Amino acid sequence: MEWLDFSTDNCSVQRTVGLVGEKWSLLILRDAVNGIRRFDHFRRHVGLSEAVLADRLRRLVAAGILETAPYRDPGNRTRHEYRLTPKGWDLWPVVVALMQWGDKHTADPGGPSVTIRHTGCGAPVRLSVVCGEGHDALTPRDVTAAPGPSALRHSPRREA
Amino acid sequence: MEWLDFSTDNCSVQRTVGLVGEKWSLLILRDAVNGIRRFDHFRRHVGLSEAVLADRLRRLVAAGILETAPYRDPGNRTRHEYRLTPKGWDLWPVVVALMQWGDKHTADPGGPSVTIRHTGCGAPVRLSVVCGEGHDALTPRDVTAAPGPSALRHSPRREA
Repeated sequence: MEWLDFSTDNCSVQRTVGLVGEKWSLLILRDAVNGIRRFDHFRRHVGLSEAVLADRLRRLVAAGILETAPYRDPGNRTRHEYRLTPKGWDLWPVVVALMQWGDKHTADPGGPSVTIRHTGCGAPVRLSVVCGEGHDALTPRDVTAAPGPSALRHSPRREA
Repeated sequence: MEWLDFSTDNCSVQRTVGLVGEKWSLLILRDAVNGIRRFDHFRRHVGLSEAVLADRLRRLVAAGILETAPYRDPGNRTRHEYRLTPKGWDLWPVVVALMQWGDKHTADPGGPSVTIRHTGCGAPVRLSVVCGEGHDALTPRDVTAAPGPSALRHSPRREA
């Protein structure tokens, strides 16, 4: 596939980036998959302004990635917390992929700040690219990208 | 792990997001893994201004994700193209994770615009979270996050 000849208008990476490809949105997702649900907890833990947090939460709710649910602490009025939807949980591999790269290339000398293990056997987990025939740990050299059913030609054709 | 009690200062997700967690950087990476190398090709295909592209390329080179290499077309002066380093190729799963989510949740009715197959057997590929003992297709429910060797307490302790 000559990628340059294809339009990015309906690129799945681009559409996903348009919804979550932004610093605060990605950090909110990181906190959400780690169990954070309340506005004030996001704000203090992620460390961003109320206005930016409110905006990013609104966008993630609009995208169907988070949904709100009421809760009420004793003596307080009812508030809303933010929970990942199934569509939101589908972004978990994105967070794991960012973490895996950071663990390898940016961690402190002592090692990562968080470990993720398979609860059933205790072994650490990693992301792997696998194929439908069961071959795993595929690298970019092992795969071939091809135009899919909705591929669009890039227009105008590149000049050089 | 009570994530709220831990500092995000040395979080691997956060550090990675600080380097590539931005719309244009992620789209440049998408194009790079698809073989784009030249400034003008990035500019026309990704569709961003020269100034923003130059800035993002500079940051990606500074982070060791891209490296420059000279090339010369007949009759032209020597220019530089941008190639992924091994550290940059390690971001491939991030791009695949974004694509996989987009294919499922944002693709046109006809299907994705790009397909990736295992060259050896032709089967489509997907990202899977696997563990060191060989269990695969792990979901967020199958894993446990725990403080790693460099975990830092969050301070000040949350108020509510």
